[in-house]
Parts: sequence; C-alpha cells; structure tokens
Amino acid sequence: MATEPLLSQLTDALRCLPGVGPKSAQRMALYLLERNREGGMQLSSVLAEAMQRIGRCRQCRDLTELEVCAICANPRRDSSLLCVVESPVDVLAIEQATAYQGLYFVLLGRLSPLDGIGPAELGLDQLAERLAKNPPAELIIATNPTVEGEATSYYLQRMAKAHTIRITRIAHGVPLGGELEYTDHSTLAHAFGSRLLID
Amino acid sequence: MATEPLLSQLTDALRCLPGVGPKSAQRMALYLLERNREGGMQLSSVLAEAMQRIGRCRQCRDLTELEVCAICANPRRDSSLLCVVESPVDVLAIEQATAYQGLYFVLLGRLSPLDGIGPAELGLDQLAERLAKNPPAELIIATNPTVEGEATSYYLQRMAKAHTIRITRIAHGVPLGGELEYTDHSTLAHAFGSRLLID
Repeated sequence: MATEPLLSQLTDALRCLPGVGPKSAQRMALYLLERNREGGMQLSSVLAEAMQRIGRCRQCRDLTELEVCAICANPRRDSSLLCVVESPVDVLAIEQATAYQGLYFVLLGRLSPLDGIGPAELGLDQLAERLAKNPPAELIIATNPTVEGEATSYYLQRMAKAHTIRITRIAHGVPLGGELEYTDHSTLAHAFGSRLLID
Repeated sequence: MATEPLLSQLTDALRCLPGVGPKSAQRMALYLLERNREGGMQLSSVLAEAMQRIGRCRQCRDLTELEVCAICANPRRDSSLLCVVESPVDVLAIEQATAYQGLYFVLLGRLSPLDGIGPAELGLDQLAERLAKNPPAELIIATNPTVEGEATSYYLQRMAKAHTIRITRIAHGVPLGGELEYTDHSTLAHAFGSRLLID
C-alpha cells in the first residue's frame, strides 16, 4: 500500500486532541463516518477557521478572532477593575462562576525562568504601560496558587505598587463543601494563616 | 453580539464527538489554539477529506475511500473464508487480535425489525448473491452475542444452509483471565452448555 488508508489517517489526526488515545480516536472516527458526517464537516470547517483566525486581543491578550475581544469592547464592563489571570480558561471559569463585571488581563503563562518564560513573554511590559497610562482602581490578582503562580503574583504586586492602585488577591483556603479532615496540610495551614475577623 | 465568538463555535462543534462534554470540548479547543495549531489544521483537512471521500467497499461494505477495500483487494487473503461482522470496529478488532487471513462481510448493523432494520438494510441480498455465485468454504458468523446479534446470526445460518458451506460461530464463554465466581449467569450457563470434548 502506497499511502495509509484515510480511516487510519483520520484516527491518527484525532489523537492530536488532548485526552484522546487510540481507542477513543477509533470510536470518534467511526462514529462520525457512520452517524454524523454533517457534524464532522461542520467541525472541520470551524476548526480551520478558528486555527487561522483566532489571535489575541490587543488589549487583554485573551483569545479572540476580533482585534479587541468582546469583554474589552463592552462599554458596560467596569474598567476600574482589572483582573489578572494566567490563561483563557480562567477567564471562562470566572465569567461562569462569578458576577464579576470588570476587565481582564491574560498572561498566557506564568513566570518560570527555568522554562525561559520571563516578564516579556507574559506581556507584563504591556500591563505596566496600561497601569501607568490608565490605572484601574483595583488590580485583582487571580493567578493559580502554585509556586510559579505565587511568584507571578509577587511580581505583579511589586509592579503595581508603583501606582496608587488597590491590589487584591483572590482568597485561598478550604473549599466550600470541603471538610477540614480531608483538606491537605498546606491548604489548611494557609486557611488558618489567612483567617478573617468576622465580628 | 451578532454572531457567537469563534471560540464558542469551536467548542460547540467539538461536542459532536462522542464522549466529549462541555468541559472536555473547552479543554480541546484551548489546547489546539494555544499549543497545537498545526495539528488542528491537519485534523481539519483530514476530517473534511474523510467525510467526503470515505464510502463503503463494493464487495464487503466496510468503510473505505477505495472502490474495493484493501482487505478485499489483497490477493494474499484467503477467499475461502468469509467472516460476517456487525460493524467496521469489529473488523479492526479481529485484525488486531487474531491471525485471521480470510475476508469479511460487514453488515453495518444487526436485524432489528422494531427499528426498521431488515435484511435489505444489512445488505443481506448482496451477501446471498455472493454465497450463490462464489461460495466460500466456511462462513464464520461473528455478530455480537446480544439478542439482535443472535437473531441476525440465526438468519445468516438459514441463509447459508441452502448452499454447501461450513457454517461456524465464534465461541462465547468465560473470558480468558476471568473467574467463574465473577462471570455473569448467562455467560456461565452458555459456557457450560457449549462445553467441548477435550480428550
């Protein structure tokens, strides 16, 4: 056989999706071919368009096919609040879970000098410029509570301190519905250390 | 917003894949956009080609982009053996697990009168013609051991009896590595009933 059968090519191509192994890829390929060719064609065209047209928002670096994303361009969002997150998923998570109406800045990564990711790769110069030109009233730091996320958070704090901005960090502690007994030690220690006055 | 953002369109389109819910679709879309645009483009083009070009083998009804599939067209396969299976996955499973070197006939379904699937939908007229014109020495029935699969198997037996063909059915029983204790009752009863003389 000169070239691989198209069915195996399709199975191989589907394996580029995260979490899809040989068995799932086979099942997906056969499902599309036997039951949903229209869906497959639709997926193919949206996929090509998305891969070619989606870039980053000029203002917040979020993924969008527009020059300025829908959130940044929305005049009803509160531009006095700016929330810094690591990735586009975080924007989606905050939008779905909270009533936050401010703007975002997406780092698309976190400080990790060993991997060659420094301030420039995260667009921090762009953020610094924005803080200088058009400072928000509050900068909400919502990087993940990992070592790199904390380092990034610290860097952001230092950066924002030069301006008269209220700097906040989202709370970390025992998750709602969680039990102290099953909470890992570092989370519990952190929750204890960050206890709040309630009366 | 007039139209949906391209990112949500992509997430929606990915949900046409079996086993992919909203969370996985989001993860896949962001992964492709952030890390593997080339893979996404490749998937898009293979997908379109496969959806448009893959049809059924004229001889065995398996999925292929050729007129006659690679197995049917291979002169080194033993044309005296014909194995009837329900779906293209079964062909792949048998090819991967066994040393079978005969040919296949793919029903693409099973007899299910309540769902409007009768002999015509399964290409049984085509199979009957093949048995009459060019009968194999052995017809191996490998439909699944479900109610519909058994009914289909019975129908195939009746059909093949008109010709002098050896008709066999793959064995059903306790799976290798399985334990009698944990084998379901109907499988164990079947295994008991189909016991073989070993000496």
